[in-house]
Amino acid sequence: MRIGLLQLNPKVGDLRGNAARVEAAFDRAVALGAELCITPELALTGYPPRDMLLYAGFACAARAEAEALAARLHARHPAGPALVLGCPEVNASGLGKGLYNAALWCEDGTVRLSVRKSLLPTYDVFDEARYFESGDASNGAGVVEYRGMRLAVTICEDLWNDKDYWPHRLYPVDPVEAAVAAGASALINLSASPFSLRKQSVRQDMLSSIAKKHGLPLAYCNQAGGNDELVFDGRSALFGPDGTLLARAAGFEEDVLVADLSGARPQVLPTDDLSAPAETWRALVLGTRDYLSKCGFKKALLGLSGGIDSAVVAAVAAEAIGPQNVLGVLMPSPWSSRGSVDDSLELARNLGMETRTIPIAPLMQAFNTALAESFAGLPQDTTEENIQSRIRGNLLMALSNKTGALLLTTGNKSELAVGYCTIYGDMSGGFAVISDLPKTQVYALARHINALKGRAIPQAIMDKAPSAELKPGQKDQDSLPPYEVLDAILALHVEKDKTAAEIMAAGFDAATVARVCALVKGAEFKRRQAAPGIKVAWRSFGSGWRMPLAAAPLP
Amino acid sequence: MRIGLLQLNPKVGDLRGNAARVEAAFDRAVALGAELCITPELALTGYPPRDMLLYAGFACAARAEAEALAARLHARHPAGPALVLGCPEVNASGLGKGLYNAALWCEDGTVRLSVRKSLLPTYDVFDEARYFESGDASNGAGVVEYRGMRLAVTICEDLWNDKDYWPHRLYPVDPVEAAVAAGASALINLSASPFSLRKQSVRQDMLSSIAKKHGLPLAYCNQAGGNDELVFDGRSALFGPDGTLLARAAGFEEDVLVADLSGARPQVLPTDDLSAPAETWRALVLGTRDYLSKCGFKKALLGLSGGIDSAVVAAVAAEAIGPQNVLGVLMPSPWSSRGSVDDSLELARNLGMETRTIPIAPLMQAFNTALAESFAGLPQDTTEENIQSRIRGNLLMALSNKTGALLLTTGNKSELAVGYCTIYGDMSGGFAVISDLPKTQVYALARHINALKGRAIPQAIMDKAPSAELKPGQKDQDSLPPYEVLDAILALHVEKDKTAAEIMAAGFDAATVARVCALVKGAEFKRRQAAPGIKVAWRSFGSGWRMPLAAAPLP
Repeated sequence: MRIGLLQLNPKVGDLRGNAARVEAAFDRAVALGAELCITPELALTGYPPRDMLLYAGFACAARAEAEALAARLHARHPAGPALVLGCPEVNASGLGKGLYNAALWCEDGTVRLSVRKSLLPTYDVFDEARYFESGDASNGAGVVEYRGMRLAVTICEDLWNDKDYWPHRLYPVDPVEAAVAAGASALINLSASPFSLRKQSVRQDMLSSIAKKHGLPLAYCNQAGGNDELVFDGRSALFGPDGTLLARAAGFEEDVLVADLSGARPQVLPTDDLSAPAETWRALVLGTRDYLSKCGFKKALLGLSGGIDSAVVAAVAAEAIGPQNVLGVLMPSPWSSRGSVDDSLELARNLGMETRTIPIAPLMQAFNTALAESFAGLPQDTTEENIQSRIRGNLLMALSNKTGALLLTTGNKSELAVGYCTIYGDMSGGFAVISDLPKTQVYALARHINALKGRAIPQAIMDKAPSAELKPGQKDQDSLPPYEVLDAILALHVEKDKTAAEIMAAGFDAATVARVCALVKGAEFKRRQAAPGIKVAWRSFGSGWRMPLAAAPLP
Repeated sequence: MRIGLLQLNPKVGDLRGNAARVEAAFDRAVALGAELCITPELALTGYPPRDMLLYAGFACAARAEAEALAARLHARHPAGPALVLGCPEVNASGLGKGLYNAALWCEDGTVRLSVRKSLLPTYDVFDEARYFESGDASNGAGVVEYRGMRLAVTICEDLWNDKDYWPHRLYPVDPVEAAVAAGASALINLSASPFSLRKQSVRQDMLSSIAKKHGLPLAYCNQAGGNDELVFDGRSALFGPDGTLLARAAGFEEDVLVADLSGARPQVLPTDDLSAPAETWRALVLGTRDYLSKCGFKKALLGLSGGIDSAVVAAVAAEAIGPQNVLGVLMPSPWSSRGSVDDSLELARNLGMETRTIPIAPLMQAFNTALAESFAGLPQDTTEENIQSRIRGNLLMALSNKTGALLLTTGNKSELAVGYCTIYGDMSGGFAVISDLPKTQVYALARHINALKGRAIPQAIMDKAPSAELKPGQKDQDSLPPYEVLDAILALHVEKDKTAAEIMAAGFDAATVARVCALVKGAEFKRRQAAPGIKVAWRSFGSGWRMPLAAAPLP
């Protein structure tokens, strides 16, 4: 049987548009000989629909759209393949959450049956127990007879609980095992599995091991595209009963992959560079492009400081929407180095972006005057630095408001972690392109960009010591540990849930660890008001980071 | 048996401090003759600890603190009562989430046993399935033999699933029913049940009905105090086996209530004004006071515009931390009315607050000059209004940074819903006191404040038409429907999950509904970066509102 994996990039909530995307991909798969088509998880709503699911009218509209789609596909392809369509389904039992996360089996013009997701991820960025009731995996309800086969339909997390693969399991049941016990002859999975670094190798290894363990072919259809903080990297795939990867769809873009479940005619696999900078680049470009386009923005702007962060964000934005649609704004102050202007202008020339320069000294002077009486007799401190940063935020937002271009904010994860950033200042902006990249990874990405794009980022920007340039002679490393040390501590504290005591026990300098952990705690209020950014790490700030504010520090 | 309900106000994460709070309350309860003491849910960590629970070191430290506390209490009161202590417990089974939400039974100096919460709320602001594995309620594991009684220990949500009380149940099991079947002779509940309007009457009615249904006394211990967005209103209570309310602890403050499970010596019940403005006032004052104190702030400041919102926030802040600790900042522009200054000064005099006045015309002029070239030939629009608002934000944050006073932001729920506010402008601030109050409720609260506080809010502020005063002659109602209409639509769309189509079907003007719903959608990006505010409504913006950004509108 030839399976069509419709690796779609849906827009969240766009039921009509997403149905049209399914329809176009279905047509293409039919033309390629598909006998069964599979969409990603919740393809009709896009994933994740989040609290849109709490509106009963939304689920009803999705169901109506699914039924209309089933009828349309049948009308056009009367003997065509069935479609397994990800769509929420109302729980009419009167008990529990209002919905199921379902796969609707569309055949002969109607929704013939549904299979319900059993394992509901409720960790990190996932909140599925908030919306969905669990399906009952234990009775083989997900096994569907179709054209002489017994197809086990599972949804995303349903695959991620194999007791032989994982040392620690989150759920007592394994829907795959139950389906195999019910006589499945092939495994099918609808997914919306977001990108993070190093995930693809785990994913591919796990899928292969499940196929091999059960001696069954496994067809896996993943979502592509960026939805807010999450980027979905696609890479839908077909595995043979011996675990061999037989075919794989494109990474980080829409695709339709049609392949033989029997393993006949295996694909010549495309190459896939899984190095961290290569993966990061593709994720950031796609995430930025999709956030802008799905929000309706055609243009973006950002402040260019002459530093590495804004250079990298400019390069990502230029790649995502074209340099002609990106404006770089230079806002030098009396404390700005000569390089901050020259290097930014060179960067913009290299990328092909326009720039605008607005010196802020007169605005700083105006604030000094306005606050002179209030601040009389008080020493200068970070207040004056924050004022500069907020002047720039106001200018950038004014340009955004006046021109309809989205302001991209350029902070990295290291500074967001320790609060080395100004709320309502440089944190201003609608989208935070590199807020999940520690500074050391920003440099690695910059080198990758220069390898790809002919040294677009000037060497001076690569080489200079990081500085906020908010007072004369300032350098990041006057206030912070060296970034190699800082990032190593943050990786443990922020991404691996290690407490200060545990990090000290791992051999880091105790005073440095204590200081860094205290800074992380103290910056929580800034992160609460931060722009959404693209998830790259295993654990990221944003919707999957839920720390209390008015709280004591961790022990 | 005399039960001591230790209605505590813990600080989240402050294990040592919270243990000391339990200890002091325990001593007081012993002095009042308690034979068994109960804390609120997770009293040792404070509720909700949120992602602090993901740190294994945190749960370990909590357990160690619990054991040390049990030993200390026994040393001081060798024949003293047992303590039922809310504390997370490590799930050592190797399957599922890492923790249980547990009640530790501390007796004779050790933790004798634990009872685990079965029903894990995962909706609205609650994320318990993110952290906890469910206890097994079905086998009567929560019934504890103690001094001749069989006490059924349940935790918060465990009580909220009675099939005779609720028309729709979220869970298939009822831990109370299971405990009664196992021979319980009394019901005990550790809660952290946050305040919202109209909740107390439901809560009291439900608790009474459960006691009566099973013919058992019910002792209910709730948390008091504000933790970030949530205010816990206490009102711990004892119900007799006929459902009679026998005793109730104070609302909105710490308390120790000792009462006879037998119903002997019932308390003369304190009065409790459950009107919406009275409840709101107590919640906002407590929430503001606790946010400030638990974050370590002694002082607050806010912008005074001459409007009702900043007047109400000023009154709340003055009540919460004393008017001598609240600074009002007047920042008139050329578009400000005379009243904006005079009325604000009168308000501040009435409340006993200091003020400072910083005219912003020179700053507006400086921005006009800086942006003249960029804006050449473009018409004025809301950009210029936003610049003013962001100038004020910068000034307020500068005063906050320089003096260490927390900036309170003054926006109401109506404007936050439709985006009638400036991100990084008037939305600047660390805490949003009235962000869950629709404008109509702000007026109701203002009248209540004037009844309580001798007309502190000048009549001119009560009477004037709402205006942002960001351009000459501007009034809110030029841009928005009348607030009575707007708030009615918002109540359906934002608080009752009704789509535009459903609201139109309820009889509202279709064009107005469509416009309001589109505004709500369009302002999502502002709310994503809004300051935390105090939850007052059944459904609120903030941590319990999780809408996608780059998404199509609801149908």
